[in-house]
Amino acid sequence: MPHIELPADLPGITSAFAFRPATAKPMRELAETLLRGPNTLTSAEREMIASYVSAQNDCYFCHASHRAAAANHLEGDYALVDAVRDKPESADITPKLKALLSIAGKVTRSGLEVTTADIDQARAQGATDVEIHDTVLIAAAFCMFNRYVDGLATLTPTDEDMYDLMGKRMALQGYIPAEPEPVSTG
Amino acid sequence: MPHIELPADLPGITSAFAFRPATAKPMRELAETLLRGPNTLTSAEREMIASYVSAQNDCYFCHASHRAAAANHLEGDYALVDAVRDKPESADITPKLKALLSIAGKVTRSGLEVTTADIDQARAQGATDVEIHDTVLIAAAFCMFNRYVDGLATLTPTDEDMYDLMGKRMALQGYIPAEPEPVSTG
Repeated sequence: MPHIELPADLPGITSAFAFRPATAKPMRELAETLLRGPNTLTSAEREMIASYVSAQNDCYFCHASHRAAAANHLEGDYALVDAVRDKPESADITPKLKALLSIAGKVTRSGLEVTTADIDQARAQGATDVEIHDTVLIAAAFCMFNRYVDGLATLTPTDEDMYDLMGKRMALQGYIPAEPEPVSTG
Repeated sequence: MPHIELPADLPGITSAFAFRPATAKPMRELAETLLRGPNTLTSAEREMIASYVSAQNDCYFCHASHRAAAANHLEGDYALVDAVRDKPESADITPKLKALLSIAGKVTRSGLEVTTADIDQARAQGATDVEIHDTVLIAAAFCMFNRYVDGLATLTPTDEDMYDLMGKRMALQGYIPAEPEPVSTG
């Protein structure tokens, strides 16, 4: 049960967004820009970083939903997304994405862990400054989203099909709802 | 030296904001709403939560600047802000703020650490659902800001007077600049 009185019919972060529209707006906008905005990293790559960080933080809801969003960007290839989560070094992805995931993993623990050698390694694999910036910020932002979802103990569905549907919507329609946020119940 | 090519004359998070205006906009808006928006918690209380979390995360820049913002909301009372950072249980603050700081400390480590007992304790001291929500989100958001600042190794001034000036500006003018963000150099 959620720690505070959140709209009962909404899962995970969407219930917290409905509870507090004033903070939902910039948080949705940040997710949209980071994961679906114009970028030389594909949305699939960025969603895999989000899913990887959420798994490191043990956030069931964010991991399951962004895993599904990543897979939906990859024609349903959940096996690749799970391989990246479990063992990025040996997954079938570019060396550049491996280097960026290594940076993301460090940021998840602490920004202070990132070294010049990590950055040099990413640059050697072709990463640009904007790609490095966005990787750091995606990891940092999911350290926020994960803590927000779990710190309020939001409702966590366990039905995989529901996450697949959610992932489809996140991949195709994105993070900014067409309708304005429902009014706060708090 | 910053890990990527950030505008050289700007300190801390402001250099990262100038580098990437598209993500700066929602991040500034989130900080403004959380720390200066309409709220039954004072801005001083909210800045003390931000400063406390940033100290837990060893983020020098965010700690020093939000410590100064909190003190500037309290007529320069740095001693109180530092007492809250060092030993919130015995600081001269309300029992409600002590209970909220305890929740913030747990969120900083992981949202999963927050228990029903923590929430009950905050409610017993008069905390509302919105106050609990905002405490969780301030802590979560500073886990993002801290990692962003340190993950890019942004420039960290050590001159205390500079932070006092910065804190004054943050307290009085807030987090959304009157001018549009300078164009990205990246």
